[in-house]
Amino acid sequence: MMFLTAVVLLAAAATAHPWHPEASSWPAFPPSSGSNSSSNDKTQQVFFGRFISAPGPNELSIKTGAVLVTSSDGRGTIEAAVWDVQDVQSATSQLGVSSEVPVVQAADDGFFFPGFIDAHIHAPQYPNLGLFEGTLLEWLEKYTFPMESSLSTTESPMYANATTPPDPYARALEVYTGVIKTTLSYGTTTASYYATIDVETTNLLAQLAYSIGQRAYVGRTCQDNQEYNPSYYKDESTEDAINKTWASIKYIQNLDPSGELVAPIVTPRFAPSCTNESLTELGKIANETGLRLQMHMDENVKEVALVAEMYPESKSYAGVYDDHGLLTNRSILGHAVHLTDEEMDLVAAREAKVAHCPASNSALGSGLAQVRKMMSKGIVVGLGTDTAGGYSPSILETVRQAFLVGRTLSYLDNDNRSLDVPTTMALYLGTMGGAKVVSMDGKLGGFEAGMLWDVQEIVLDKTGPVDIFGWETWNERVSKWVWNGNNQNVNRVWVGGRLVSERS
Amino acid sequence: MMFLTAVVLLAAAATAHPWHPEASSWPAFPPSSGSNSSSNDKTQQVFFGRFISAPGPNELSIKTGAVLVTSSDGRGTIEAAVWDVQDVQSATSQLGVSSEVPVVQAADDGFFFPGFIDAHIHAPQYPNLGLFEGTLLEWLEKYTFPMESSLSTTESPMYANATTPPDPYARALEVYTGVIKTTLSYGTTTASYYATIDVETTNLLAQLAYSIGQRAYVGRTCQDNQEYNPSYYKDESTEDAINKTWASIKYIQNLDPSGELVAPIVTPRFAPSCTNESLTELGKIANETGLRLQMHMDENVKEVALVAEMYPESKSYAGVYDDHGLLTNRSILGHAVHLTDEEMDLVAAREAKVAHCPASNSALGSGLAQVRKMMSKGIVVGLGTDTAGGYSPSILETVRQAFLVGRTLSYLDNDNRSLDVPTTMALYLGTMGGAKVVSMDGKLGGFEAGMLWDVQEIVLDKTGPVDIFGWETWNERVSKWVWNGNNQNVNRVWVGGRLVSERS
Repeated sequence: MMFLTAVVLLAAAATAHPWHPEASSWPAFPPSSGSNSSSNDKTQQVFFGRFISAPGPNELSIKTGAVLVTSSDGRGTIEAAVWDVQDVQSATSQLGVSSEVPVVQAADDGFFFPGFIDAHIHAPQYPNLGLFEGTLLEWLEKYTFPMESSLSTTESPMYANATTPPDPYARALEVYTGVIKTTLSYGTTTASYYATIDVETTNLLAQLAYSIGQRAYVGRTCQDNQEYNPSYYKDESTEDAINKTWASIKYIQNLDPSGELVAPIVTPRFAPSCTNESLTELGKIANETGLRLQMHMDENVKEVALVAEMYPESKSYAGVYDDHGLLTNRSILGHAVHLTDEEMDLVAAREAKVAHCPASNSALGSGLAQVRKMMSKGIVVGLGTDTAGGYSPSILETVRQAFLVGRTLSYLDNDNRSLDVPTTMALYLGTMGGAKVVSMDGKLGGFEAGMLWDVQEIVLDKTGPVDIFGWETWNERVSKWVWNGNNQNVNRVWVGGRLVSERS
Repeated sequence: MMFLTAVVLLAAAATAHPWHPEASSWPAFPPSSGSNSSSNDKTQQVFFGRFISAPGPNELSIKTGAVLVTSSDGRGTIEAAVWDVQDVQSATSQLGVSSEVPVVQAADDGFFFPGFIDAHIHAPQYPNLGLFEGTLLEWLEKYTFPMESSLSTTESPMYANATTPPDPYARALEVYTGVIKTTLSYGTTTASYYATIDVETTNLLAQLAYSIGQRAYVGRTCQDNQEYNPSYYKDESTEDAINKTWASIKYIQNLDPSGELVAPIVTPRFAPSCTNESLTELGKIANETGLRLQMHMDENVKEVALVAEMYPESKSYAGVYDDHGLLTNRSILGHAVHLTDEEMDLVAAREAKVAHCPASNSALGSGLAQVRKMMSKGIVVGLGTDTAGGYSPSILETVRQAFLVGRTLSYLDNDNRSLDVPTTMALYLGTMGGAKVVSMDGKLGGFEAGMLWDVQEIVLDKTGPVDIFGWETWNERVSKWVWNGNNQNVNRVWVGGRLVSERS
């Protein structure tokens, strides 16, 4: 009942706002399985050239060949691959495809690389990239909550001095379109998004990701704690929070019934923004639906102390989530900087995943996450930009910061190199590691048959910032790309076989 | 005598190599004072628009107005400035210039900003940006010495597997042209360059900076220690080292007798590469000529231990330099990560300067330099990319890393915010601080009358990576630029009033 009411309200809202894009005017993507067209040449593509990936934490794979991608099922899956083939004709012949199948070639000075996976990103904070002050709790009050609320209410402090506040929904449309297109331009093919408390614009974010073609998990943030959350930006009650959570879940599931391109994600923002009651209810929802979950954990020392004070009955921050059934093998824990050994063991036992956000942790002075220690305990780790605690929308920048934080930890521990996060490992975290974090293990992060074609074409030409002299090995070229590359090196981006971004 | 021989040899070398650019075919810059043309309109320019700078470590200045730049003396100096003027006509009228004087306007969505000063950069390592492994001493052996030697000898290990080694001088021309043009494109108007042990290509670097128009201090590295330096890359003896030092000094002084655009800098690379004898001689040269000096100091824990072993008679690393007369008020100490309190006091007493290289220190795991502590002791600090220990040619990236290192130090010292290096302070270090470090205090780093017009025009348009929504204050726009800007935001760059780089 609650759900039906919400959907009706949403439908009304959708027509009430002239800014609201009409889903019907967009190309269906992926083609609904109901109208499954018969397999024909147009649904096949061959990709030929250099393929580079990080299939393991210490392994950089560089090979030349071709893959056949079939989109007839609407999923853009790698059907077959041939390696060590140096020309297109041999490749298509070995793949057994007709000459009419289109062949997409990687630039000679470039390569295909698995799309990046941003396992922790706040879509509404996109305009705040590069704006921060103080540490976590002050920053939330000064920058984050005002910006997030400005996308759904004119009561936001952002508009305190405006004579005529702008339409918050128009702003949401601009911001969400911006964050999707920008992160795609940096090669992020999958994003696990925190939206806001607002259902309508959370759904808008899902809709935009679906239409633009970015793989996305979209979560309405739960903020029913009446003491912690600001008066202008909170759920009215636990019931209100849960109703709205369901409303957004149902809308997004209706948008993409397969859940493969866009899916809802249960999002108890972080323990302080919630209550025992909402945490319990969200745990039930996640258990009932089998959906992914995402939340912040152990980001900042003061936050950890606050949680201990707010949840005295739990043994630790991880314990709070575990006590409410929120630590599952589909849970993405953002930051995870200050875990005790006991918390690490608990997280490992529950098979919950970690989104490492080094740029954010360093910029906000949150601390140095023990990535190698967590990995050695069997915890699966991926990377998150944490836009806009992190200042950059780029997972490549996050790769660099993961390296630098690892190196600083090594230095502080008397040059203990077992704490290093080498660039290959950081690339692994940003692709294959991320795939495991978002429960897409075996579907994303590489070039194996059966995987989805979520790929970026990197070029190291004069347009971009990477200066190649010509004598460098390909290992060295990858290292040069890691350290100076940006979206000028991302020529084309595909999600599920569909071309979704091209360098302008 | 020694000098004359060297110059003759150089002249011979210049004609012997077909790659060697002919100085006579380049525009003289600045016009030699001998042919000083009379002041006329063509030597004047007005710059109008928004001017942003960091005149003090805690001060960001944002103002609109115009400055009159006079180039008739070949120096491109700010003659007068008017502020709080909103239109060009009022500005030129208040400046008292005729309507024929050309007016250069900053873009509406942009601003003039003082050119960056890179106080520590290795020109020959430019092709190694993004390539590093291990910590300092291993990295020097594996990447640095092979690359540096490859610019002057076919004996370099870089060519070990080459069937036909390329012409090292042609490579030097390519690399040095690349580093100058690239750093200019990132807004670096002044660079304090380490070259190599080779005189001819060190002079080539000076010549290229002079012709392309980057303000540059160019130093031949002294490496006469027969045990420490690799066999393929060392001076033959102390006498050889000193002869070559003089040869390069004289050549560069002859190239720019004013010493204002390009000047030699005495460069005892670092204590391990030298001997007591060469350090003594270099101290005498610096004292005799009044030239600037540059050297590495206290970069890495193992290096500090090595120096203690090699120079047991000195009290500390700073003491080694001081004992040889190398700690002067014109000395630029690269890195300065591991100074003891006594070393800081010594450096402060000698008024020697520090080039903080946070990107390099973090990437090589060298440590966290105590910038705020050094500043509180009165030591003047600027920024260096340390290309290619640092992975980026950009001082703006160095600004970001200076902030992140300061924030990490704050975190490690229980959120002690007095260790922070806020972005305004980091921008100050990269401009005004750098001006003091390279002994150009009062001439570079700001927009005051009497200062040189070494300026970059920053634009925050859609071409670049900074996403401006329109509601941001200018303080916020600067912060967004700091965190996501790159050379796509650098529209034009001037040195001494001359336009030397334009965005392509």
